[in-house]
Amino acid sequence: MTNRRNIVLLTEFDGTHYTGWQSQKSTPTIQETIRNAILKITGEEVVLYGCSRTDAGVHAHGHMSNFFSETRIPISRLPIALNSTLPSDISILKAAFAPKDFHARFSSIGKKYCYRIHNNPSRPALGRDRFYHIPKPLDLDQMRKAAGYFCGEHDFSGFMSKKSIVKTTVREIYEIVISKKCSLIEIFICGNGFLTHMVRIICGSLVDVGLGRISPENICDIMESKDRRKAGKTLPGHGLYLEEVYYPEPPFSDFNT
Amino acid sequence: MTNRRNIVLLTEFDGTHYTGWQSQKSTPTIQETIRNAILKITGEEVVLYGCSRTDAGVHAHGHMSNFFSETRIPISRLPIALNSTLPSDISILKAAFAPKDFHARFSSIGKKYCYRIHNNPSRPALGRDRFYHIPKPLDLDQMRKAAGYFCGEHDFSGFMSKKSIVKTTVREIYEIVISKKCSLIEIFICGNGFLTHMVRIICGSLVDVGLGRISPENICDIMESKDRRKAGKTLPGHGLYLEEVYYPEPPFSDFNT
Repeated sequence: MTNRRNIVLLTEFDGTHYTGWQSQKSTPTIQETIRNAILKITGEEVVLYGCSRTDAGVHAHGHMSNFFSETRIPISRLPIALNSTLPSDISILKAAFAPKDFHARFSSIGKKYCYRIHNNPSRPALGRDRFYHIPKPLDLDQMRKAAGYFCGEHDFSGFMSKKSIVKTTVREIYEIVISKKCSLIEIFICGNGFLTHMVRIICGSLVDVGLGRISPENICDIMESKDRRKAGKTLPGHGLYLEEVYYPEPPFSDFNT
Repeated sequence: MTNRRNIVLLTEFDGTHYTGWQSQKSTPTIQETIRNAILKITGEEVVLYGCSRTDAGVHAHGHMSNFFSETRIPISRLPIALNSTLPSDISILKAAFAPKDFHARFSSIGKKYCYRIHNNPSRPALGRDRFYHIPKPLDLDQMRKAAGYFCGEHDFSGFMSKKSIVKTTVREIYEIVISKKCSLIEIFICGNGFLTHMVRIICGSLVDVGLGRISPENICDIMESKDRRKAGKTLPGHGLYLEEVYYPEPPFSDFNT
């Protein structure tokens, strides 16, 4: 009988210096960096399952991953142990045991992303790797109107990277909330799943609406056309944050506290 | 007759990679970096007067400085021109003409600082150069009670760096506001002037109260003792922000918009 248990990690990371989550040859990834920390702390070479493949430069406040381990380190001490060897731009916030069949990616029923924009004539010095800078004023009322057209179940093939290989391009967006405080605009998007670059292309299209380049109603036409060229540009990765991953039985009940 | 005019700059900077504001030999400072940008853009070697000498690693959302120039670049274009040559961790937010006798430091009647603390068992990955990490919970009610004892006019000689050389150690603190949102604690301190390291030592003492090491009432005793050794430690520079500088006639009327 084995003592291998399924361990879930809740991780915050600054994606600035990484090529994304997934392991690649000869470039630093978040996945490889955490795997190396687990090896150093537990002595085990594990397979680390991530909730999604985040792109280069993208950040996370609530990334989820899991791995099987026989470690005897108390689960409550594991974040401190891993953080002691991880670089300062990755922090394990919590660790917990999960049922054997829990999988960070396949058990997920949805995700919340946030795209952060610095909307001010001057570029930000303190948030330069955290926010996308748009110097011209954005019309938030028009953006919120446009956001309504994205909500619900739609074929998002006009809002994905051409290199996507997926079974279906239908996804459901539960909610888009756009808030502003001083120069910071936050676009929160919740949905059951997202195609490659989908959040960044939706946000690029919302910015086009905010700048008056297209009308909110145009979103319907672009969606129906399924033509990537008609949608807005893919906004850069450094404004995007994975905020939360949803599961039928959340491994961390007090996630947001 | 000369066409030299007094120009005021409102600047945001990330102090992480600088040894502070003031020019020093062989180490990069904010002052020298902005002076070089002015030279490159206007061709003029100017004296740049700063509102204060910020320490190494300290950030600013609202630093003020002024210089005399004959440049014909329209004042509204000057921030964009300077930002085009400044590194990304310094951003000129605004520029304006000021009366001949305006001096960023000597015309000032007060300043607002903010000390930002990440109060969570896990260290922050995204805010690691922006917030001071305190893993143990802080008692904000006790800290607010202690903050009240600092307000008003006092001799702050127990709350300054030993290397300070000043005419008087009496300063007036107008207000201290302590707020919390999720893991972020912000301590805003407004006053007519601050001694070397005074804000960071006051915040270090407030943290001692928050951790239960001393009682709020102890603040009075420490203040009366004028003994630096009895006050809290000097918190590190990377949690400190210069937020705003006050003047009888503000050069930027719409400062906070």
